[in-house]
Amino acid sequence: MRTIEWKEKEKELSLIDQRLIPGRLEYLTCRSASDVANAIREMAVRGAPAIGVAAAYGVALAAIEFDGRNVEDMKQAIRLAGKHLEESRPTAINLTWAIQRAMETLELPIHSVEELRLHFISLANRMADEDVATNIRIAETGEPLIEDGDTIIHHCNTGSLATVEWGTALGIIRMAFEKGKHIHVLVDETRPRLQGARLTAWELQQLGIPYDIISDGAAGYFLRRGDVQKVLFGADRVAANGDVANKVGSYMLALAAHANAIPVYSVFPTSTIDITISSGNQIPIEERDESEVLDVQVGGQQATPAGAHARNPAFDVTPNHLLSGWITEKGLVRSPFNKNINELMH
Amino acid sequence: MRTIEWKEKEKELSLIDQRLIPGRLEYLTCRSASDVANAIREMAVRGAPAIGVAAAYGVALAAIEFDGRNVEDMKQAIRLAGKHLEESRPTAINLTWAIQRAMETLELPIHSVEELRLHFISLANRMADEDVATNIRIAETGEPLIEDGDTIIHHCNTGSLATVEWGTALGIIRMAFEKGKHIHVLVDETRPRLQGARLTAWELQQLGIPYDIISDGAAGYFLRRGDVQKVLFGADRVAANGDVANKVGSYMLALAAHANAIPVYSVFPTSTIDITISSGNQIPIEERDESEVLDVQVGGQQATPAGAHARNPAFDVTPNHLLSGWITEKGLVRSPFNKNINELMH
Repeated sequence: MRTIEWKEKEKELSLIDQRLIPGRLEYLTCRSASDVANAIREMAVRGAPAIGVAAAYGVALAAIEFDGRNVEDMKQAIRLAGKHLEESRPTAINLTWAIQRAMETLELPIHSVEELRLHFISLANRMADEDVATNIRIAETGEPLIEDGDTIIHHCNTGSLATVEWGTALGIIRMAFEKGKHIHVLVDETRPRLQGARLTAWELQQLGIPYDIISDGAAGYFLRRGDVQKVLFGADRVAANGDVANKVGSYMLALAAHANAIPVYSVFPTSTIDITISSGNQIPIEERDESEVLDVQVGGQQATPAGAHARNPAFDVTPNHLLSGWITEKGLVRSPFNKNINELMH
Repeated sequence: MRTIEWKEKEKELSLIDQRLIPGRLEYLTCRSASDVANAIREMAVRGAPAIGVAAAYGVALAAIEFDGRNVEDMKQAIRLAGKHLEESRPTAINLTWAIQRAMETLELPIHSVEELRLHFISLANRMADEDVATNIRIAETGEPLIEDGDTIIHHCNTGSLATVEWGTALGIIRMAFEKGKHIHVLVDETRPRLQGARLTAWELQQLGIPYDIISDGAAGYFLRRGDVQKVLFGADRVAANGDVANKVGSYMLALAAHANAIPVYSVFPTSTIDITISSGNQIPIEERDESEVLDVQVGGQQATPAGAHARNPAFDVTPNHLLSGWITEKGLVRSPFNKNINELMH
């Protein structure tokens, strides 16, 4: 079961609607590029790798939607759709990467509307399959770092739901578990959207991996007590120097792990690296609507006063010096990231 | 309006039921020591100074409840009630401090049941008044540290609700605001009980002090960007070396402030200092029921899967080296805490 599935007969994209989990498992059908852009913006689909692949299908849907006969007009319509898709969320570079890769198709000597359409669909399918293969290689890279008996803190969701299938950081945890290692996961609930409490807990439960949900602020307590052996999280954009933009809260988690000499790894496909950006300070950080912070209930009671205000940055930047390593499908990168990732890539 | 009010005519303790705020402002009536112990345990009353004073009234209620005529029997009943009150929550030392202070009454040459009763009531009343006076002195100590234009991150609730009246860390913020300083408060929502989002936001709103609620994990984002000038929080128990046990999440907040060279102050009455404990590692940390983490809804939907597990430490320890100062009613203490607090106290 994939998070993102192309229905070839219907020419539709089917997505697990992640806003409804863990309450309900329902699929959202996207029939146009703007359906996909909305699904990304509203976080029906989320997770950097997943939104990259979803956007590639969005471009394919734009090609299908085009009902003219002129290839140049079609290319123009596709460029516009790509631009809209890219603007749906600003931080995850996988979105830009996927759309740029799709736009390269426009440079190919393809002169028929129908041929171009097929090309975009097959490209998106290829990117979906590649994502799964990449995730398996990431897991094979990271799994040996996990030791029998480890307690691991994990932030946000990096599982099957964050990708097409298998996941990145959570994929490592899954592989370690399936190889028979006894592990325990402390799941950062990851306010405000609670991707940890909602999605990661749900995935771990289905896989039978032992876990406990914790408040994000409690991670430091467990780290300082010596109860934790590893910290893992994903990445939404990695600067050339190895600074990592990831779900808000990752930075404080990395600080607490580093202060207690516990290894912290950021886990991502190399498509998450943005070599055009020298440091994390230049990564655009999305600030989402305050309602995501304010709309919270405990025991069915609204927790925030009427008329309250909130700030809601969706990501933060973990500077490279706090990280023990970067786990990619090409291998484990140790510090200095800049030099070592170049060697791995070339 | 006080958080804790003694009704002399009715011989009842009236407490703002903090579990209902911000939805409703209702008072809970305690007519016995065990009513008070339950109110403390279930966090109808919370905040280290507030539970100290509530416990003193709990002891007074035990004296009132006693319906015998033998003073020694009465003292025995009161000792037992004191023990039960003290066990209602383990971390805040103010509880122990208040009860020990009440128990000293048992050593006085009082030989009538009625006289002893009056003595306990008047002691609790005195402790309530002292708490307010102490808080004003704390605010006078801390207020000069706040500069016009400061943005301040505040964790949990340390306002009127956490004390009899006025508050500790939030009392400093209030005094700075009332002196005309332009300040902005970033309110850590403080999962899992959301004391920031529920109580601090409610108090700031009533006082007209500008604020925004943030997820606990977002504090690092604002600190790293240079948007914040001060970090303030309270204390539930301070070890002799200045390590501070406070609401879970304080440690990660202090780490993030320290990493960005932003001053962090812990604010408390000197009754919060436990000189019998040399370092924070020896402070007992309460772990509360997992339901406090699991029972959370967004948009009215349950956020955690059925059958999920959680860990729920209610406090953590901030080591002294992360703190820029300790603000008490006796003055501002700079590092080394051990030496400087002794000079201040004697």
